[in-house]
Amino acid sequence: MADFNVRYEEYRSYFENELNSFCNDIKTNPEILGESMKYSLLLGGKRVRPVLMYAVGDAVGVDRETLTPYAIALEMIHTYSLIHDDLPEMDNDDFRRGKPSNHKKFGQANAVLAGDGLLNTAFSVLFGECYKGRDYVSAAKLICDCAGIYGMIAGQSADILHEHDANPTVETLDYIYDNKTAKLITAAICVPSVLVGGKQYSRFKKLGEKIGYLFQLTDDILDAEGSFISLGKSVGKDEKEDKLTAVKLYGLQECKLFADMCESECNMLIDGIDGEVQFLHEFVTFVKNRHN
Amino acid sequence: MADFNVRYEEYRSYFENELNSFCNDIKTNPEILGESMKYSLLLGGKRVRPVLMYAVGDAVGVDRETLTPYAIALEMIHTYSLIHDDLPEMDNDDFRRGKPSNHKKFGQANAVLAGDGLLNTAFSVLFGECYKGRDYVSAAKLICDCAGIYGMIAGQSADILHEHDANPTVETLDYIYDNKTAKLITAAICVPSVLVGGKQYSRFKKLGEKIGYLFQLTDDILDAEGSFISLGKSVGKDEKEDKLTAVKLYGLQECKLFADMCESECNMLIDGIDGEVQFLHEFVTFVKNRHN
Repeated sequence: MADFNVRYEEYRSYFENELNSFCNDIKTNPEILGESMKYSLLLGGKRVRPVLMYAVGDAVGVDRETLTPYAIALEMIHTYSLIHDDLPEMDNDDFRRGKPSNHKKFGQANAVLAGDGLLNTAFSVLFGECYKGRDYVSAAKLICDCAGIYGMIAGQSADILHEHDANPTVETLDYIYDNKTAKLITAAICVPSVLVGGKQYSRFKKLGEKIGYLFQLTDDILDAEGSFISLGKSVGKDEKEDKLTAVKLYGLQECKLFADMCESECNMLIDGIDGEVQFLHEFVTFVKNRHN
Repeated sequence: MADFNVRYEEYRSYFENELNSFCNDIKTNPEILGESMKYSLLLGGKRVRPVLMYAVGDAVGVDRETLTPYAIALEMIHTYSLIHDDLPEMDNDDFRRGKPSNHKKFGQANAVLAGDGLLNTAFSVLFGECYKGRDYVSAAKLICDCAGIYGMIAGQSADILHEHDANPTVETLDYIYDNKTAKLITAAICVPSVLVGGKQYSRFKKLGEKIGYLFQLTDDILDAEGSFISLGKSVGKDEKEDKLTAVKLYGLQECKLFADMCESECNMLIDGIDGEVQFLHEFVTFVKNRHN
């Protein structure tokens, strides 16, 4: 995995530089609006979605310069969803990546607006790309729809609705996983394909869904087993708040078996991709074995 | 004004029909997500922004079919801003248009998501228009930017920051008015101009700013003088919450004088517009004299 780590870090630091320079251009009045947006946007994190987008870009032949606006927009959308999700009325989380969550730092009103501001700015960036042609519009619309009321927001709504669900079903759990987590990851993976006219689109879409599922599965396993130190956020919260998770539905051991199965399915999908895919194989292993 | 009322009602009911059929196609899982979005979207209201957009469209020669996606998107953005603005951490309003505000009806978590959902869906509609060409992209980006962190969201952020401001300035008040209210009204007025290649754009932009300012001025006068029956929302709240308003800064009588001056400036701008503008003149009078 040494090569994998080098390449992951290379993608991540490239993105981080681009994001930093993007953030430097955000100068709002009042300043607190931009500061609160940047606070959450620059808390770090693994940058899973941008890294995946660049990696698929390298596999299908889309360069990083072309992808960066889409990667920044997607990361802003991901960040807004965390800010709103951490609000007291939602998941009520005081910590994120080891730091106070946005509303603990800036207050709830500013946190609502920071989230709104990130979502709106993401789309402003994406509209800027739409002048380049139809495929660029399609890639922007894909991100928008994956984030929306038939995507991530639907998943969050279902997540809230099924807290304390006395009769959880596999279908409900899968719906939440597929939408809350997998949709944005699918967007990250599919954008490069859309930008080259939809090359191998349906395979990438399936792969995004599977990696997204695996990502949420390991998230829930980590919430049950992890520590605050490694995760940088509260642990054991899912059980305490009676959230519908795979751990609740299947138990921890079964979840780990499912994660192994999910990894195999991802690898089979990746094998069929035309292009250089070693990094994607290792990415899947990384998602499964991560500690944060 | 009899002709004005007929034409206003014609624009309004046309929009209302289009919005209703748009809403009929929103079918979410969970249902509560779509229901909460539609609840606020279909509460009625004057539909000022869509009516203005259609009226300017008639003046510069853009038909309603072309404008409707932009009008629907703008009304969704306006509605999301009201939902988030009414939240307890923001303006804490229990009523809107005489009905319980979104969070009173559906709870705070669902209200946050209903707002997010409306904003995201607005942009999904606008991306759908971007395939038609550059002017359509520009019109979509204009709405996005007017709603964003250098537009409406900045205004809301400043509005919150300057509650209890002991030394309010004219500059601060103007900044809040220009952004919180006038930017979306400017977007409504400028979209038709952008769609015909920017015809008389700078004049329409100035007109939007002025009408928006007048709109917020009368809003503040109504908050000080109006009744719950006519407004359908709490009155006297600005003073109680020590908000920075024109009434606080200038006093009520001075505000009414400013509204008259603002009306004159709007009419001078309208006189210079090439096209049929009688409705726009009467629209300005309507904004100034409205009771809700």
